[in-house]
Amino acid sequence: MGALIPCIIAGGAGTRLWPVSREAMPKPFMRLPDGESLLQKTFMRATSLPGVERLLTVTNREVFFRTLDDYRLLNKTHAGLDFILEPFGRNTAPAIAAAALHTARLYGEDAQLLVLPADHLITDTQAFEAAVQAARGLADEGWLVTFGIVPSHAETGFGYIEKGQALSHGGYQVAQFVEKPNAATAQEYLKGGLHLWNAGMFCMRVDAILREFEQHAPDVLEAVNTCLAASHRKDGNREIQLELDSNAFGNAPDISVDYAIMERSQKVAVIPCQLGWSDIGSWQAVRDLSPADANGNQCNGETVLHDVHNCYIDSRKRLVGGVGLDNLIIIDTPDALLIADANRTQDVKYIAQELKRQGHDAYRLHRTVTRPWGTYTVLEEGKRFKIKRIVVRPNASLSLQMHHHRSEHWIVVSGMARVTNGEREFLLDTNESTFIKPGHTHRLVNPGVIDLVMIEVQSGEYLGEDDIVRFTDIYGRVPEPPKA
Amino acid sequence: MGALIPCIIAGGAGTRLWPVSREAMPKPFMRLPDGESLLQKTFMRATSLPGVERLLTVTNREVFFRTLDDYRLLNKTHAGLDFILEPFGRNTAPAIAAAALHTARLYGEDAQLLVLPADHLITDTQAFEAAVQAARGLADEGWLVTFGIVPSHAETGFGYIEKGQALSHGGYQVAQFVEKPNAATAQEYLKGGLHLWNAGMFCMRVDAILREFEQHAPDVLEAVNTCLAASHRKDGNREIQLELDSNAFGNAPDISVDYAIMERSQKVAVIPCQLGWSDIGSWQAVRDLSPADANGNQCNGETVLHDVHNCYIDSRKRLVGGVGLDNLIIIDTPDALLIADANRTQDVKYIAQELKRQGHDAYRLHRTVTRPWGTYTVLEEGKRFKIKRIVVRPNASLSLQMHHHRSEHWIVVSGMARVTNGEREFLLDTNESTFIKPGHTHRLVNPGVIDLVMIEVQSGEYLGEDDIVRFTDIYGRVPEPPKA
Repeated sequence: MGALIPCIIAGGAGTRLWPVSREAMPKPFMRLPDGESLLQKTFMRATSLPGVERLLTVTNREVFFRTLDDYRLLNKTHAGLDFILEPFGRNTAPAIAAAALHTARLYGEDAQLLVLPADHLITDTQAFEAAVQAARGLADEGWLVTFGIVPSHAETGFGYIEKGQALSHGGYQVAQFVEKPNAATAQEYLKGGLHLWNAGMFCMRVDAILREFEQHAPDVLEAVNTCLAASHRKDGNREIQLELDSNAFGNAPDISVDYAIMERSQKVAVIPCQLGWSDIGSWQAVRDLSPADANGNQCNGETVLHDVHNCYIDSRKRLVGGVGLDNLIIIDTPDALLIADANRTQDVKYIAQELKRQGHDAYRLHRTVTRPWGTYTVLEEGKRFKIKRIVVRPNASLSLQMHHHRSEHWIVVSGMARVTNGEREFLLDTNESTFIKPGHTHRLVNPGVIDLVMIEVQSGEYLGEDDIVRFTDIYGRVPEPPKA
Repeated sequence: MGALIPCIIAGGAGTRLWPVSREAMPKPFMRLPDGESLLQKTFMRATSLPGVERLLTVTNREVFFRTLDDYRLLNKTHAGLDFILEPFGRNTAPAIAAAALHTARLYGEDAQLLVLPADHLITDTQAFEAAVQAARGLADEGWLVTFGIVPSHAETGFGYIEKGQALSHGGYQVAQFVEKPNAATAQEYLKGGLHLWNAGMFCMRVDAILREFEQHAPDVLEAVNTCLAASHRKDGNREIQLELDSNAFGNAPDISVDYAIMERSQKVAVIPCQLGWSDIGSWQAVRDLSPADANGNQCNGETVLHDVHNCYIDSRKRLVGGVGLDNLIIIDTPDALLIADANRTQDVKYIAQELKRQGHDAYRLHRTVTRPWGTYTVLEEGKRFKIKRIVVRPNASLSLQMHHHRSEHWIVVSGMARVTNGEREFLLDTNESTFIKPGHTHRLVNPGVIDLVMIEVQSGEYLGEDDIVRFTDIYGRVPEPPKA
């Protein structure tokens, strides 16, 4: 049997989980009460499977550094990491085609791709391993194997897979895929025992899926093939980064693998399984993860409640007082607050959509913004000043830069900084500070082995993020000068 | 007719208006949507009355500077200001006894005291002036005059005054004071037309009220008299401060003027009036001040609402998203959030009480803390650092001080500072910064005519507010050394 290459696919924005999930910090990065993100849990699940030596991730290039951070924080570095970085989302068919072509070239036509959405939760990892084992057996016979979750209730929010003829390894040929049903149909499915939830996970040999692409979606395959040829590959020590060319990728049809391949192919199988699976599709689903107290409340953070029942309250930084409430979802973040009827959590997407329409920052960004070198958090903005907390990862470096209109005051509160300030270069230790005048080129490097934490106070007439001239940047954010 | 001395009395904590009203920032300082505090509105109302040359304020000494700030911000300096500063609350009878004794001594036995609670709202100032004019007439005849608000609905939350025999000036002798009625009785009162709401305002000659104290509450009068003799008086340019001795004041009975005098005296009159009066007793009352939109919502701050009706949302700094809500009060402050059923706003006091029981900071303090020299706001606290925004009023000065464990970095973002840092004294202009090492004595003065706004970043192992040694302080916060 060929190598097993888990392929984590990071998808949509998770607008129903606003204000925690946002465009620049989508649902895979959402942290559960145990402190781990959905992405980290998916990574652990994938790399813990027997025989896994490399893991492939298909994601947006905007979140590449954040993804790498999340993986590295787990201190599980045995697996080599491949990345296919998309310039924008193009649905699952182009993503899986790219993953299959990449895997076929590097790890052989007989390698097996295990496609895992980055933002689902699986609590029964033993059952997951067993299901993958069964899927690998069928995949080796040339099947495109889906994973069908045995329904626990008459859910109307998922697509279903109908079992057909029994196959080996406890699997079935797929009779058909069916769209999200109405309540009555969902009830019939639940009773009938033939229908399973489509979890969006797949296991297949790369030659098998590529054959199906050739037959059912040759336009996708051709566009992705052309795109891979035009793309830029960087090889690191244990990492491969393939940055997809944005012009070429733009020619790939925006289509799901279900629609392009699975619903058309004759070679699709399903493994029925019970994995403790959730797609964490709404705040109601998040709430279902933790037990309620005697009043039916689930609280993360400090609360004082008077006659409050059946509420989910998540507020890590601020005290919440509640009086006479029932069945609400309350989600507090530094810059935005959500209060929703718990029966209406699907409608949270309308809030996110409206913010997107307005071009509102609270749709796109959190107060903490991820950069290749670490993060910054805007603590306070006022007239003539802005205060940020800046965290620079060990060995990371901000670009050599200059501002025309603002001065910057840097105070190191933890770690050590190497600072370039105009002509001078010097070390700045914990509790020390320096002052960068407008017009002075400067650079900040963390030469140490622990995070550098700094407070930056900007002051001046104009404090927009666009008052920056970058000279050199180790993350490629300065366009190269045209060749002579 | 004697001089009219309005006397603003600042009373309780306003626990039903948590989280805006807190122990260190009680209800009189609460700002309405127009930006003025209830205290400022009361001050304007009092000093705009014809013939008023001095205004007396009885309040807790903890909020003296804040009170002065609020008055000064109005730029109405024509009235002289007298203050009686209580070391702790002792209900209205001792406060009014002290006010009457003070006024009798300084402004004559025939002076008239107009007692005004600091935290009520009156929108019809013309009707107020007319009512005061009528009350002065009756007061001149020796009556203790109350103001009876003509009920607009069958309110069960107020005490009532029953009209008796008609007097001159449109007034009536008071037949009796009655406690908060039940709903049926309140309905009868509304129909009957004999009962008025007790607004807690009074107008009386000081000799008249002192006679009644002698007769009905001689213990209160004696205790307050003794206390005044032991108290410390400071005379400023246009200000008199009388700081009550805390031991002596502790001997005064904790009793209301209604119970001690008004319900017992035969010389109590009432002026019926319609003043657009509200005691702003709950968030529901605050909500009644502003009109609702087509969905019945009232929003201060940024909101995105989907199927939200009849909600009052006050969130100045953060975006609020709402889905499927009805009839909620949502009050957002930097460190605490209240969500309450709008029919249950009286019960908000239980949240405040529970926080008090826990000794929680969110009962006592806001993130912005008032000091004699201005304010500071804790913007962020973390491991090894704390960031404050410090606002120093013109000509104000922080004490000369020293910290053992922390260094302080000061950055001026607006205005000009005069800094003492160890042996050196220098000016620090906008956009400039300085650094105070642990163990260095330092002082900060605003020598200018506009507010000095500064960002202070503290860093070090220990950042508690108790790591401070004060050497000299113009606000008397350094105990004088014992005389040799």
